[in-house]
Amino acid sequence: MNASEPPERVSLGRLGERGLIRRIRKAVGAVGNPGVEVGIGDDTAVLSVPPGHRLLATTDLLIEDVHFRRASAAPDDIGWKALAVNLSDIAAMGGIPRWALVALAIPADTDSGAVDAFYAGMEDAGRPYGVTVVGGDTSASPGGWMVNVTLLGVHPGTPRLRSQARGGDAVAVTGSLGASAAGLFALEMGPHRARELGVAPDRLGEITRAHLRPRARVAEGRWLGQAPGVHAMMDCSDGLATDLAHICCESGVGARVRLDHLPVAVAALEAGQVLGRDARQWAVGGGEDYELLLTCDLESADRLAAGLADATGTPLTVIGRIEGTTGEVVFVDAAGTPVAMRTGYEHFTEGRDG
Amino acid sequence: MNASEPPERVSLGRLGERGLIRRIRKAVGAVGNPGVEVGIGDDTAVLSVPPGHRLLATTDLLIEDVHFRRASAAPDDIGWKALAVNLSDIAAMGGIPRWALVALAIPADTDSGAVDAFYAGMEDAGRPYGVTVVGGDTSASPGGWMVNVTLLGVHPGTPRLRSQARGGDAVAVTGSLGASAAGLFALEMGPHRARELGVAPDRLGEITRAHLRPRARVAEGRWLGQAPGVHAMMDCSDGLATDLAHICCESGVGARVRLDHLPVAVAALEAGQVLGRDARQWAVGGGEDYELLLTCDLESADRLAAGLADATGTPLTVIGRIEGTTGEVVFVDAAGTPVAMRTGYEHFTEGRDG
Repeated sequence: MNASEPPERVSLGRLGERGLIRRIRKAVGAVGNPGVEVGIGDDTAVLSVPPGHRLLATTDLLIEDVHFRRASAAPDDIGWKALAVNLSDIAAMGGIPRWALVALAIPADTDSGAVDAFYAGMEDAGRPYGVTVVGGDTSASPGGWMVNVTLLGVHPGTPRLRSQARGGDAVAVTGSLGASAAGLFALEMGPHRARELGVAPDRLGEITRAHLRPRARVAEGRWLGQAPGVHAMMDCSDGLATDLAHICCESGVGARVRLDHLPVAVAALEAGQVLGRDARQWAVGGGEDYELLLTCDLESADRLAAGLADATGTPLTVIGRIEGTTGEVVFVDAAGTPVAMRTGYEHFTEGRDG
Repeated sequence: MNASEPPERVSLGRLGERGLIRRIRKAVGAVGNPGVEVGIGDDTAVLSVPPGHRLLATTDLLIEDVHFRRASAAPDDIGWKALAVNLSDIAAMGGIPRWALVALAIPADTDSGAVDAFYAGMEDAGRPYGVTVVGGDTSASPGGWMVNVTLLGVHPGTPRLRSQARGGDAVAVTGSLGASAAGLFALEMGPHRARELGVAPDRLGEITRAHLRPRARVAEGRWLGQAPGVHAMMDCSDGLATDLAHICCESGVGARVRLDHLPVAVAALEAGQVLGRDARQWAVGGGEDYELLLTCDLESADRLAAGLADATGTPLTVIGRIEGTTGEVVFVDAAGTPVAMRTGYEHFTEGRDG
């Protein structure tokens, strides 16, 4: 988007579908980025994958009042997050994100300024990685907003899979956990109410930002994806408990996680204290932190943590071990006693189980 | 899907998200198809594009009560069409369809049999081309069904674009037009009522099938995409008038179409007569026929028509000429007199203009 010439704001009804597509194309369809031969405006995008590279492909559908609420997520937040959750999937393979296809359905009376903001948020999330929107679809929605992003990436080597955990591996996670779930909790109760209850404004900003504008660990995924000693890797989107269970299930192993070793986000700990919630529960079951979860040779863990911090500034924390073949994830306290934790969000079922 | 062992029917609430994904993976995630290194079940699919091939990518979002109605479209029809509309986009570039990513949002109380039928319909549509579902997303929908399909294809040569029409070109279209819009008209009035008004049952079946289970012109696109003399090509999804206007706009040309040369589907003509509608209008403004629309050297037209019929059995009909630089499409009768026709469906605006 050219900031010096803001486009005129009109209703989508006046703009029409073709007008909207022209507007989107102008805002985001920058042809000239690596591998884009044909971008928005033809039947398909035409792309070139560099020789010797594998293609990575992932898709995510975000629906108003299921994945976000308009009351707390501005259009630019929605655009940001819709891309970020897919960036995180490419990061988890150790890949390089490249091209996005974006399908957007919105009520016909939506103001074009909201659409501009949506794509601007998406551009902001993708710019650091040179991601280009190369195609998409627009349509009227009879209900709320619906956004589907398909992100394509490339990989010059061997992608890291969920199925590669080995018995005796260390389990490690980048960054910190729990801030996103804490932010969601505060947004759902109302930020005003959270402030009244004593959550400090900067901490409140930190946790709500973690939820609305997550940052995918793309550079970290590239570094870890090439580092010797790393075995299984995936992104932490559904909550540590659920995601680690995926790795265990795909690898035919089990895992034991030390709750006292979890890198719970400081802002989540503080908010949890004030709001009377166990921040460890946010870290284990909350999801949407978009950190990378991996298993590695036990003896490589220190070297990997030092190397990652050196390369990206992001910490890597060992939180447990791969043990057994049960597919089960057990959480234990410092004394080794199992502690029951709630697992992540489950579509289609009432509430949360665990 | 293994027909000899139909999976147990349960509610999605009982199945849960992981159970649903396992079920989908079993039904459609056939790894082993060309280029699929990792299919459903990891953070991204891992694919290999054959050396020297370009990558094609397209996405379409279908929403209940905007793009289809559950009253007339069964789950297998929805699955079929969601893939077919994307197959058509790959066909329009002259490409080879390969891998699909499918995001499906459905109410939590949906029966798993409906989900099975949806994927079975999609499999049926993709099987002739060896298309594999390599990834996706599932979620509960607060409203109706929403389906997003991203289809990836490959192209060993030079894709046909919308922007390649030249002054003096013939405008031609594969197959016939209008059956899909006639079918939609009959479905909207109720098939029972259409029969009462005198539409013959086999014709009614033909036009409703054209609407619910369109067949993409994949083999035709491959043949035409490599044939010397073909210039611009696209698929006819929004209606001839709208789609030809896209070609004109992208190529900086105008077009003149002879209404008396349009290959209107016989079933649409017959239904139109009985129902008191102008079937030419369905052919021009109705859309969703998923025929291929192209421009070619005037002197190549006969050779192309004969060659295409020989290779695929599908007719190619010259319907007009590329003329001028206005971007406008003019419809004329046999005497050359302009006739005002309504253009295709337009999201975001009330009714249809033109």
